[in-house]
Amino acid sequence: MTIPRIGQGVDVHAFTDTADGVPLHLGGLHWADSGGLDGHSDADVVAHAACDALLSAAGLGDLGAIFGTSDPRWAAASGCTLLTETAARVRAAGFEIGNVSVQLVANRPKFGPRRAESERILSEAVGASVSVAATTTDGLGLTGRGEGAAAIAVALIVHSGE
Amino acid sequence: MTIPRIGQGVDVHAFTDTADGVPLHLGGLHWADSGGLDGHSDADVVAHAACDALLSAAGLGDLGAIFGTSDPRWAAASGCTLLTETAARVRAAGFEIGNVSVQLVANRPKFGPRRAESERILSEAVGASVSVAATTTDGLGLTGRGEGAAAIAVALIVHSGE
Amino acid sequence: MTIPRIGQGVDVHAFTDTADGVPLHLGGLHWADSGGLDGHSDADVVAHAACDALLSAAGLGDLGAIFGTSDPRWAAASGCTLLTETAARVRAAGFEIGNVSVQLVANRPKFGPRRAESERILSEAVGASVSVAATTTDGLGLTGRGEGAAAIAVALIVHSGE
Ligand SMILES: [Zn+2]
Ligand SMILES: [Zn+2]
Ligand SMILES: [Zn+2]
Repeated sequence: MTIPRIGQGVDVHAFTDTADGVPLHLGGLHWADSGGLDGHSDADVVAHAACDALLSAAGLGDLGAIFGTSDPRWAAASGCTLLTETAARVRAAGFEIGNVSVQLVANRPKFGPRRAESERILSEAVGASVSVAATTTDGLGLTGRGEGAAAIAVALIVHSGE
Repeated sequence: MTIPRIGQGVDVHAFTDTADGVPLHLGGLHWADSGGLDGHSDADVVAHAACDALLSAAGLGDLGAIFGTSDPRWAAASGCTLLTETAARVRAAGFEIGNVSVQLVANRPKFGPRRAESERILSEAVGASVSVAATTTDGLGLTGRGEGAAAIAVALIVHSGE
Repeated sequence: MTIPRIGQGVDVHAFTDTADGVPLHLGGLHWADSGGLDGHSDADVVAHAACDALLSAAGLGDLGAIFGTSDPRWAAASGCTLLTETAARVRAAGFEIGNVSVQLVANRPKFGPRRAESERILSEAVGASVSVAATTTDGLGLTGRGEGAAAIAVALIVHSGE
């Protein structure tokens, strides 16, 4: 095995007013009873951070460059769809995906009860193990004030066929 | 060797008023002459971020799920105790721990003079190399305003016996 | 191959007023038409985060300890110079550098058009592949308000000669 490659990804989107009726998509799941996030695709910061970590590990650029907001093909795509497409591009570039680890940083939703479900869906999208964790910032900063949700991810990949 | 696995962890806790007399625990060390952090266990963000990175790398969930605030066994446990327990669970799940890297992001304490001491204590708790670094955010954001302390960690593990 | 080692690095610096005429250095590049960042060396958060990730992976401490602001040799050094020196120290400590992945989190400059140029320059400085990505925080937090620029990096290294 040659030396594995790693990548980092961060994403932040702002919460909309619940009254606006924007659905909340996080970690590949739909969350009822909570205002959604505003952003490209479905604003799923967990999926987007995972995409950026995989793309950076493979040296393929970033989400904005590949799924740019000006491209109508991806404007309405879910974070899971972008993740599936990202994983395909990473493999097409000659890599096997080891695993991805993502942490959601947000006041809501209460992620724990559906963590396993999120991990199953994102792992299917990537075709490799995706771990998802969640934490808060004790009322501090942009996530603590409930202004938005953030996610941080790392990914490890190796050249395939080794 | 099969493909290694990596994990990411982030933690943030709020500083209490120094007058409240809450002790400050960071990086496995007690820091006199500084107000402490408010949070579960001893609010040691460095140790907590390291725990979350290890748990995520192993696909074992997160700190909140395993050492939940409602569980009296862990309510008073130090961050180092949680880290030791975390490492034991990662090994019990069939992994060898490669290393952990954590960065403290906070205005205080002045970490540099005791960095080596912190690394020694945390490495003993994990049973593998733990690097600890510290930085500030130039007066910006929640850490720059001194409202809280943050830590970001990554961990690398491999399936044992390989 | 023994188990690889990973490291994490974060850096934040504050933007100066454009009227102050401080040049902006980010990702090893000079950006005209934008106020610069305030900080040690040339305040290149991308290069600094990469340095911290490499140093932490190798267990060599952090940027502040090695290139302290009180040391006149490094006070005026560019982020690229610090990165070259960092890579030399990591190799001198017995490691081969796998890759580095850095993400810039900032409202400006518009990074995409020069991403490949930044990756080329930073990869030359490190002597290994450096991926650079960029994102914003949708107007939230210290970077969203344009107060500063942040960067987050991970690095993977292996013991050399294996
Ligand atoms: Zn996004
Ligand atoms: Zn904590
Ligand atoms: Zn810096």
